[in-house]
Formats: sequence, structure tokens, C-alpha cells
Amino acid sequence: MIRGWVIAALAALALPAAAEPPIVLRDMGSFHVGGREVVISGKPVQEVRRTPGGPPAKVDPNGPQLVEHMYVQYFLPAEPHGAYPLLLWHGGGLTGVTYETTPDGRPGWLNFFIRRGWDSYNSDAVERGRAGFAPPDVFSGEPVYPSKSDPFERFRIGAGAGSYDPDPAKRKQLPGSQFPADSYDDFVKQMVPRWLTTDDAILAAYIAEIDRVCPCVILVHSQAGQFGFRAAQARPDKVKALVAVEPAAVGDPDRVAALKAIPILAVYGDYIDQDARWPTMRATGLAFFGQIEAAGGKVDRLDLPQAGIHGNSHMMMMDRNNLEVAALIQKWLAERPGLYR
Amino acid sequence: MIRGWVIAALAALALPAAAEPPIVLRDMGSFHVGGREVVISGKPVQEVRRTPGGPPAKVDPNGPQLVEHMYVQYFLPAEPHGAYPLLLWHGGGLTGVTYETTPDGRPGWLNFFIRRGWDSYNSDAVERGRAGFAPPDVFSGEPVYPSKSDPFERFRIGAGAGSYDPDPAKRKQLPGSQFPADSYDDFVKQMVPRWLTTDDAILAAYIAEIDRVCPCVILVHSQAGQFGFRAAQARPDKVKALVAVEPAAVGDPDRVAALKAIPILAVYGDYIDQDARWPTMRATGLAFFGQIEAAGGKVDRLDLPQAGIHGNSHMMMMDRNNLEVAALIQKWLAERPGLYR
Repeated sequence: MIRGWVIAALAALALPAAAEPPIVLRDMGSFHVGGREVVISGKPVQEVRRTPGGPPAKVDPNGPQLVEHMYVQYFLPAEPHGAYPLLLWHGGGLTGVTYETTPDGRPGWLNFFIRRGWDSYNSDAVERGRAGFAPPDVFSGEPVYPSKSDPFERFRIGAGAGSYDPDPAKRKQLPGSQFPADSYDDFVKQMVPRWLTTDDAILAAYIAEIDRVCPCVILVHSQAGQFGFRAAQARPDKVKALVAVEPAAVGDPDRVAALKAIPILAVYGDYIDQDARWPTMRATGLAFFGQIEAAGGKVDRLDLPQAGIHGNSHMMMMDRNNLEVAALIQKWLAERPGLYR
Repeated sequence: MIRGWVIAALAALALPAAAEPPIVLRDMGSFHVGGREVVISGKPVQEVRRTPGGPPAKVDPNGPQLVEHMYVQYFLPAEPHGAYPLLLWHGGGLTGVTYETTPDGRPGWLNFFIRRGWDSYNSDAVERGRAGFAPPDVFSGEPVYPSKSDPFERFRIGAGAGSYDPDPAKRKQLPGSQFPADSYDDFVKQMVPRWLTTDDAILAAYIAEIDRVCPCVILVHSQAGQFGFRAAQARPDKVKALVAVEPAAVGDPDRVAALKAIPILAVYGDYIDQDARWPTMRATGLAFFGQIEAAGGKVDRLDLPQAGIHGNSHMMMMDRNNLEVAALIQKWLAERPGLYR
């Protein structure tokens, strides 16, 4: 994409939040969707007191349990402009909070897209956040608990391994980084434990969400890259556009033809060439996009540094220029025929 | 309270949701608050692949970790009528979803109070939902995973032990129950695992929320009864009113004088006399209220069946008459001097 296109998008960017008009919703709410019932047996019954001084009670985990559902919160503007709902899918170790207020208190992408008239569905994937997690032995293995230093070094906030220091003043943030590192602790609090063995369950629940809410546009980030492409391959008629923000993995290379009618935008931030992991993940993405195009599809690549936008981390929806990036995505969506009015 | 007062409140109840005007917000967003940093050591480093076919990575849980914070989502009406923010605190094994859309898709108490002009702060307590949970050994013990039958029998939806049946047609719901039992699975999906050893951490985070957001009005349910009364005892000048919906436990009986200037409303639903546990928990509450009044305070009791409102379960914010109950709480709040305009 050319720089003139980017400049036009940024010129249309709204005024700062303080000057913005109210958010007017015809409705807002939430639901859970997907999942299955399992029957647990052979576990001990616990004798507990749920409150101090309260009556004794038994907790029996045996019997039917509902597992592997997901949580969805929706905001429906009074004056919709999106022709379809917009679904926001978060990355690994995160929840829908990704798209809410930034760690330093600025508006996030959720408010941005609601204000532009998208019926917006923000969610917590299976075993994250308000989706809850299953009793032992339903998922394989244990969740992982990366230390506080991990996302600093892994999400292109700091300059890779060793860049985190307990003393904020001694952390080696990437030069020109747009991440609001003064609020790094607030970002770390957004992270939640995750299992590494639940991809199939997560995808199944996302497909259940599609079956309930779509046709729609889907925006995915990081881990959700694979879910976005695979769900679109499973329901190609229901997905009217797909925005992949730094997808960490992609879809089934044997089924790329299913994606050929879906407009796709892939967005990548800065510092990828100097990272230990991201050159590989981007190359995987670009190879997959080539396969889609060889099958007759179309993938627009938005490389932010090539477009003159510098300093974006993997968490570009909370970087200081997060609304500039959102405006580029909005402009791309608005230019797809039939998506926005 | 007299029945005429209740009838007046219900007469003021809004039209059904379909006829309601838009929700107009000057802002909405979220943050995490509270918690502490711990240093984990001696745990094994895991070799993982975060995505299928992705690059190998190490997950090291050792080092600093942020734990015991909570999640808060806020909705600020464009035309506020509450003189203070309204904080909504959920019960055990639940999250802020408690106050969102009911399991059968009707508006919940969150939308009700936002529409009445309350700056509303809905939250997930420590180790629930979007608050995330800590690595092993930070909390004592393991979380509990009650079976699907447990809330049916324990929350006065069914007629106690043995009332749940895998076949919905064979479940023994309490006669006249207002709970939307056809959507029971959707309610069970709202439940999340909980630890039984985190009361102190939960209270500390709630006090951190108060220190950030209040002065305020606080509405608590079930497990949060103890947190509401104890937080008010810790910050009596910050809590301008307290609504305790079926508190499962209460505050420190040695510090009731701290509550004497705080208007308090306690709400109880139906079927308590025939329940195995609730007569004890209600008696604990009523005894505590007597102590508050002996110290010069005031506690209004709203016993719904005595007021002519029948059929309410422990989850009255999602019962079919949930907005009738909310209207009684709203009327009580509006009648307290200086709370509503």
C-alpha cells in the first residue's frame, strides 16, 4: 500500500477522546457459546466452607460439567455503519481486554470500531478469562505462567532476550517504540494463564460463535491467526472479510481455495527483522498468503514501517499510535465493496 | 417495607427492552487494579510450541509475577444521575457476567443501572474471569469445580439436594420459581472455578478499587457480602451506601460502629425457610444487622416474599422478574438523601 493511502486514512482520524461525542448503543450485552458436556467420575468429594464461619458444604466435581465454551460481549451502535458485525479475537495468554482501554488509559480498538458504527463482538476464547476453564483431565497438561519479563522480551517491546530489568529505568525498550512502557505492569495484569493443548476446542467454540452471529467481519491477533483462517475455511460463506494482525500461525494450506472470495488484510508492525521469532512467523504468513493468491484469492499486506509508521510492537492495539493503525484498518474495511455504508 | 412502597417502585419500571431508548455513554473502558508482585523460583522451564508448526520456545515461570489484581469494566452515562459511581461485586464461582445479559437473553442489572444514570463499575474479583489466576503455590490449595447439578440444588432454583436431573424435564424446580431454567446451561457456563483460600487477597483488591474509584455506592451479592461489609469497615468515608443481595457472610462484628453512617439495604429472595443452608446464612446476616443498629446504624431489610414478590432464587439478578427487583433497589437508592439526582 502506498504512503498517500496511509496519509489519507490518518487525516480522517477522529479528534482526541476528550472531544469525542457520546457512544450511543441500541443495546449491549453478553453470552456464552459453544462447548460440550463431559461427565467427571472418580474424583474426591471435598468438605469445604465457602465463607468464613459459614456452614460446611460438600463440593462434588463428579457428574456432568460444561466445558470448552467461550464468552462474548457485544456492543451494538444505534446507527450501525458496518454491513456485518465485527468479531474481535485476541491472542494467546490474553482475553478480550486486549481491545479495551489501553494499559495507560487511552481508548482501545473496541471503542474505536464501535464509534465507527460496527456491531462489535469482543470475546474471551475457551479457557481464557470469563470463558472459565475445565476441571483437571479435560485439557492435557497444565497452563503456562510466563514471568513478568516474558512479554516485554517476546512482544517486541524490549530488544529481545535480556532486555527486561526489574528496574523500569534499566529496561532496554526498542528505540522509537510506541508501546506505553510506563504502564507495563498494567499490561502484564491483562495476561492470563493459558493451556497449550486447547487449539481444537478454541476453534470449535469460535465456529459456534460464527454460527450464532455471522455473516461477519473477523479481526484476529497473534494466536488467533490460525483460528481466524481455519474458521473462515470452515465457514467461507459466513466470513465477509478477515483482518489478521500479526498472525502467529495461519490456516490449512490444503484448503486455501476456500479463502479465495474473502478479502484479507494482514498487518505487521516494526522491529520484525531484528527479532528472534517474528521473521519465521511472518514468513509462514507470507507463504500462506501466496498460496491463497495462487488459488485465486487476494491478501493485502500492510507493513507498517514500509508505510511510514514506525515503532509498533506486537501489541499494536495498545501502542501510543494505536488509533492510527485502527484508522488504516477502518479505511481498508470501508473500501471493500458492500462492507460499510 | 410496606407493599404500597413496592407497588410504587414497580409502577415506575421501564417499558420492555425493545421499546427502550439507546444507551448513551460519555465513555466506557476497563482497567486492572490492586495485586502485588511475587518472585517465583525453582520451577522447571518448559519447552513449548505456542502454535502448531511454530518455532520452539521456552516458558520460564521463574522470576517476577504479578498476582492478585482484579479486573474492572466501567460504563459512564452521558447524563449521570447517580451522585456517586455504583460498584457491582459478584458472588463466588462467578464473575461480573452475573450482572450482564441474563442466561435467557434479557437485560440484566448492569444495563438497568446504566440506563438510570449510574456510572457503573462491573468487575471480576481476584482469580475470577479476566482477573486471571496466579501460578501454583501463590494461593493455597486447588480451585473447586462443582458439577453442573450443584448450583441448581444450592441456589434455590431446584428444591435442594436431588432436585437436579440430567433430563431437564425431570428436574424438580421450586414451585413458582422465577429462574429461567430453560436456559440453565447458559447460566452454568457463566460459572468459573474458584479457590477457597483467597478471601484476603480479594478484599485487598476491592479496597484498591475503592481507593481508585470511590466515594461510591456498592452492590454486593452472596460471597461478596463479606467483602462489601469489610471494605466499608476499612473505608467507611468512601462508601455512601451498601446494597447486600443475599450476603453469604458479613463483616467484622467487632467493628460495626464503622458502618453506622452508611445506609444499608439487605435483600433476600424466596424459599429460604425450606433450604438447607440459607436459614443459617440469613440468620447470620440479620444478627449482624442488629449489631449495626445497636451501634447507631440503620439497615433496611427487603424480604421479597414478605413484600409480595415471590419465586426469587439466589440469582435474583437473572430471574424473570429481575428488573422488578432492580427497581426496588433503585427506588431505595433514589430515596437516600444525596445519592441520586
